[in-house]
Amino acid sequence: MPEAVENPAVVDLVGLHSSIQLSAFTRLAKDAQHAPDLPGRVTLSRMAAGELAHLDQLERLAGRLNADFYGALGAFDGLMGDLDRRTPPGDWWERLMKTYVAFGVLTDLQRELSGDLPAPLDDVVGDILADNGHADFVVAALTPVVAAEPQLGARLALWGRRVVGEALGIAQRALDEHPRLLTLLGTQGPEGDPAARVRHGLSGGHARRMDRLGLTA
Amino acid sequence: MPEAVENPAVVDLVGLHSSIQLSAFTRLAKDAQHAPDLPGRVTLSRMAAGELAHLDQLERLAGRLNADFYGALGAFDGLMGDLDRRTPPGDWWERLMKTYVAFGVLTDLQRELSGDLPAPLDDVVGDILADNGHADFVVAALTPVVAAEPQLGARLALWGRRVVGEALGIAQRALDEHPRLLTLLGTQGPEGDPAARVRHGLSGGHARRMDRLGLTA
Repeated sequence: MPEAVENPAVVDLVGLHSSIQLSAFTRLAKDAQHAPDLPGRVTLSRMAAGELAHLDQLERLAGRLNADFYGALGAFDGLMGDLDRRTPPGDWWERLMKTYVAFGVLTDLQRELSGDLPAPLDDVVGDILADNGHADFVVAALTPVVAAEPQLGARLALWGRRVVGEALGIAQRALDEHPRLLTLLGTQGPEGDPAARVRHGLSGGHARRMDRLGLTA
Repeated sequence: MPEAVENPAVVDLVGLHSSIQLSAFTRLAKDAQHAPDLPGRVTLSRMAAGELAHLDQLERLAGRLNADFYGALGAFDGLMGDLDRRTPPGDWWERLMKTYVAFGVLTDLQRELSGDLPAPLDDVVGDILADNGHADFVVAALTPVVAAEPQLGARLALWGRRVVGEALGIAQRALDEHPRLLTLLGTQGPEGDPAARVRHGLSGGHARRMDRLGLTA
């Protein structure tokens, strides 16, 4: 017998996770199509399929919570907004960087909101948030070209700032439109405002990602 | 210890299967993005991920055969040729139909060439060729609209003929450029020419698929 949903914010969170996983699938599958070589195309395609596998876990979780999976997912329809129209990558490097930056922020958002979940959510979310290797893939691809071409590095730093602005806007909109999500966070701690704590976490994560590439955020 | 490759035609076949599976992943992921509703988007995304899972089986098989997986796959680079440029779907129905027709032909090609394989190939290929539900999905989506709108049916019949021409060209090119593939087929039987038998099989499969939609091939 399914467990009753005790907290509608948990259903919101299942919807958010599902929407980001589905968007990550779409994004990585598209990136794979543009990969300059076969091993890259296969690797990114596999990462895409891995993101989708998490969607199956989330649908089962929704069932256990007696929640409507497509309702929860549909509540985040349009989450990505105009990201693709507003930030069309100009080349392969910008494409890699865009996914690294934007899904870096969104994965951090998933992580920030999932820090203190009861079972069985914590297990599923732990699986979802496990490293899929994409960041390492991008760092391995970009580091040598950034080192060899300072102009490219400068362009990618600028591009990263543009993409992160859009990604932070997506995260902010998700929180604004689904304010129950923030109730999943405790109010204790040094900073009382949970939304400010989330924003702080997302900015910090982005700075660390840019630092891995030797670029300033 | 890996088994030695005894027959280079078998490596060609692993490459062909791999290339078609990877292309099916890309195609279904792209179709998913255009799905008019969330359940359709999720269903097609899952089918895409399923096609990619078969690629993992094929890579392991290449390893067992002591063959270079990326070499085998790369030999079919460009297999799909200009399909997407030459047949851009005008709407969702044409998109569904295109994948149904083109990958119907390519799956039939995989099947025709894989009829009489030794272990462990036969197991892997049996998994790859198992029905992924896509044809039923398309038939369920198109049948009512074709029944309700005869003009749409006529347009889709015409579109199907255009797409099948391209798809048969892809199959023919694969056989022309990799003539060892045909050595996997016996030469006995009522028709001696294996290439003619394959073409006959592909045309018959296409006619059955159109018939399922109530359209003439």
